[in-house]
Amino acid sequence: FEYDAPSMKTPVPGPKSKELTRQLGEIQNVGAVNFFCNYEESRGNYLVDADGNRMLDLYTQISSVPIGYNHPALMKAVTNPIHLSAFVNRPALGILPPENFPEKLVESLLSIAPTGMTRVQTMACGSCSNENAYKAMFIWYKNKERGTNSPSADEVSSCMINQGPGCPDLSILSFMGGFHGRTLGCLATTHSKVIHKLDIPSFDWPIASFPRLQYPLEEFVRENAQEEARCLEEVEDLIVKWRQKGKPVAGIVVEPIQAEGGDNHASPDFFIKLRNIARKHGCAFHVDEVQTGGGTTGKFWAHEHWGTDDPADIVSFSKKMLTGGYYHKDELVPDKGYRIFNTWMGDPSKNVFLTEVLNVIRRENLLDEVTRSGKVLLQGLYELQAQYPHILSRARGQGTFCAVDARDDVTRDNLLLKTRDKGVLLGGCGDRSIRFRPALVFKEYHAHQFLNIFNDVLSEY
Amino acid sequence: FEYDAPSMKTPVPGPKSKELTRQLGEIQNVGAVNFFCNYEESRGNYLVDADGNRMLDLYTQISSVPIGYNHPALMKAVTNPIHLSAFVNRPALGILPPENFPEKLVESLLSIAPTGMTRVQTMACGSCSNENAYKAMFIWYKNKERGTNSPSADEVSSCMINQGPGCPDLSILSFMGGFHGRTLGCLATTHSKVIHKLDIPSFDWPIASFPRLQYPLEEFVRENAQEEARCLEEVEDLIVKWRQKGKPVAGIVVEPIQAEGGDNHASPDFFIKLRNIARKHGCAFHVDEVQTGGGTTGKFWAHEHWGTDDPADIVSFSKKMLTGGYYHKDELVPDKGYRIFNTWMGDPSKNVFLTEVLNVIRRENLLDEVTRSGKVLLQGLYELQAQYPHILSRARGQGTFCAVDARDDVTRDNLLLKTRDKGVLLGGCGDRSIRFRPALVFKEYHAHQFLNIFNDVLSEY
Ligand code: FES
Repeated sequence: FEYDAPSMKTPVPGPKSKELTRQLGEIQNVGAVNFFCNYEESRGNYLVDADGNRMLDLYTQISSVPIGYNHPALMKAVTNPIHLSAFVNRPALGILPPENFPEKLVESLLSIAPTGMTRVQTMACGSCSNENAYKAMFIWYKNKERGTNSPSADEVSSCMINQGPGCPDLSILSFMGGFHGRTLGCLATTHSKVIHKLDIPSFDWPIASFPRLQYPLEEFVRENAQEEARCLEEVEDLIVKWRQKGKPVAGIVVEPIQAEGGDNHASPDFFIKLRNIARKHGCAFHVDEVQTGGGTTGKFWAHEHWGTDDPADIVSFSKKMLTGGYYHKDELVPDKGYRIFNTWMGDPSKNVFLTEVLNVIRRENLLDEVTRSGKVLLQGLYELQAQYPHILSRARGQGTFCAVDARDDVTRDNLLLKTRDKGVLLGGCGDRSIRFRPALVFKEYHAHQFLNIFNDVLSEY
Repeated sequence: FEYDAPSMKTPVPGPKSKELTRQLGEIQNVGAVNFFCNYEESRGNYLVDADGNRMLDLYTQISSVPIGYNHPALMKAVTNPIHLSAFVNRPALGILPPENFPEKLVESLLSIAPTGMTRVQTMACGSCSNENAYKAMFIWYKNKERGTNSPSADEVSSCMINQGPGCPDLSILSFMGGFHGRTLGCLATTHSKVIHKLDIPSFDWPIASFPRLQYPLEEFVRENAQEEARCLEEVEDLIVKWRQKGKPVAGIVVEPIQAEGGDNHASPDFFIKLRNIARKHGCAFHVDEVQTGGGTTGKFWAHEHWGTDDPADIVSFSKKMLTGGYYHKDELVPDKGYRIFNTWMGDPSKNVFLTEVLNVIRRENLLDEVTRSGKVLLQGLYELQAQYPHILSRARGQGTFCAVDARDDVTRDNLLLKTRDKGVLLGGCGDRSIRFRPALVFKEYHAHQFLNIFNDVLSEY
């Protein structure tokens, strides 16, 4: 089914991609366009571009392709007459769900629910998942504070004009380097790059330092524990300070691994203590698994690596899950209909695909596969950074969710381009990190293929 | 192809819907669920529920179904092998678009672009369309104010911590009764119902009165012109006031007909003057056609009824367009890549459907059909309100985008239920309005069918 190696015909972007970029440039800003793709011809781990170049894809559409391109199970799902209606008739799920909706939720999303969560709200992308998770936390917090679901007359009238007490000065605590989306609520908790935030109005919400650890983690246990303790202390200080400011923290949002912000890891101990701080101060604890979820760390959810029974109050997802949404504890169910609501509330046609993806993951034991190929990948990165210490450092990862730092941003960008010209597609993150985000069908074989090519690039550098 | 009449077997919700609601209630808040649907069996204007009841649908999934259920053209599109890849491989459109993307944009979205707009940015739903339209206006406004695209060092550092000058105190002016979505940016411009806004932090942005007109418009020209003049004056006052407050208005957002807020109309003259006020004060003018767009007013865009060459700087859409997005003028292109960005930036599989929808609209002259059936519908409502003046008033509409007011909210809710029990599905909006939102395949025949049933309900009331 799959190809067995990259095959390059032109530099990337090739002439056809360049011409198409020019055409699209008359309609949109194309500053972020890398090249144009021939998705029909792409297969498994290999992305084919408009000029016929075939690349091993370790970036997978910003980590959003779960089981590779044109997977037969997904192709079959589209052409199966039983699913036709799900594609053609997109319902307003919040008011008129299809009759198989509860059953489909149980067999897909609830079958992989994080520990302690029996409830899930579907959404359509990472941003609406997080925006609505924040709203659920605000509603929960205010009901708790008020001691009742019934707002005062003052709250009712003031909320319609964006004023308190109806629109309260509540906040979400986030971390420097975090990324949770770009709509205005999400963006107030995103702090990874200037380009995302510049010129957009925001909320005065508290932002804590995220631990800046030394890698490999096993070698710097004491130093890293100190760094994590410093950040946790800052979190508690900020919660107290913002309460005094009159903008209490309704929830804390954190990624299990900061992705967009540079693949920053922290220990299970850090997250468990953070979760306890949230509980102690009456804040909800929201784990954003939009990029880490779906199996790429070797467990279905990255927070499973923490080894705790009570990881979170809310866990949001999207990307490789194909549908957006969030799991949550019972307490965070909104008290009335229409409080968490929009026209579509997700898309059952994406659930069709998710069901197939979960079947493939189980049938082919893809989480074990990810663990195995992730080991090869990380081990290979350790060897390369030992061999090229003036270029690479800080190799780190969990499963295939790996990264390595280049000397500086210019070197990083050069390495990405040179590796691409040899047929491997990678992504950057943070200031000077390279991130690896292959699909779950990435096998040891593909890891070796990448490492060989990357070694060539480094040796020529 | 279609059914020819409603057919009711049980009260709605029937026993099967009730049992499914109980099941879903263990997973989600079901306060807004009306009943469960059998989408496979639904056809054209008729929605079939889980208990086998068949209803004439004048609400169409909150106005989001363009050409009825299971339209043959859409069924064919899914099973056409040429589209398989678009369904199975959802790309990160902003970085790796499919090679046919520019061509597809030209043949679908650009073929119906509003006057003066040659650029379109796809998004996935109404909320991200509006959120990103607001961001585009903020970026445009700041670049204009700064006189350059290069931010100061102070702007760069402050934006990462949500503070000015990098995150400036800019505002969007909106109207009381407006609805533009529920994510935190959109929600700050939404003012239709308490339940949407309560307990959610917001921005201190200016809110103007929307004209409260008397209907039929032809009979109250003078009174209505006065009311509109009052609102326009308020808009100018607010722009000045917010500038003085240090929160300048970067853009004005308005619906051509306030939908969720109660189907409030205004005259072309009002909108043209509003557009000129925006220009005069250096604010962008954003027309939100999420609910009004796509043909339901008898023109493809409701703003075409204003008869002006320069209706707006930004026009956003979603719902019946199946994909979200916004058209905009050249000046509003972001100056760099990644400023307006997210993982998916839309979904080419929705463009596949939109292309088919546009073909059907053209082939079957559906805009003329809408104009014809809309006339029958509105004329019928006029007659009914003349016959039942103690129950109905203020019938109004454009195309099939019609509404009528009930005496009070209890009466409205009762009428909706009683009409549903006789096989017609309607929606409410505002405090006591009934809104009609049929698909574009709603014909004179269906209008008569509804009017007969509604007459029965009213005569028994
Ligand atoms: S905000 Fe998620 S799809 Fe629009």
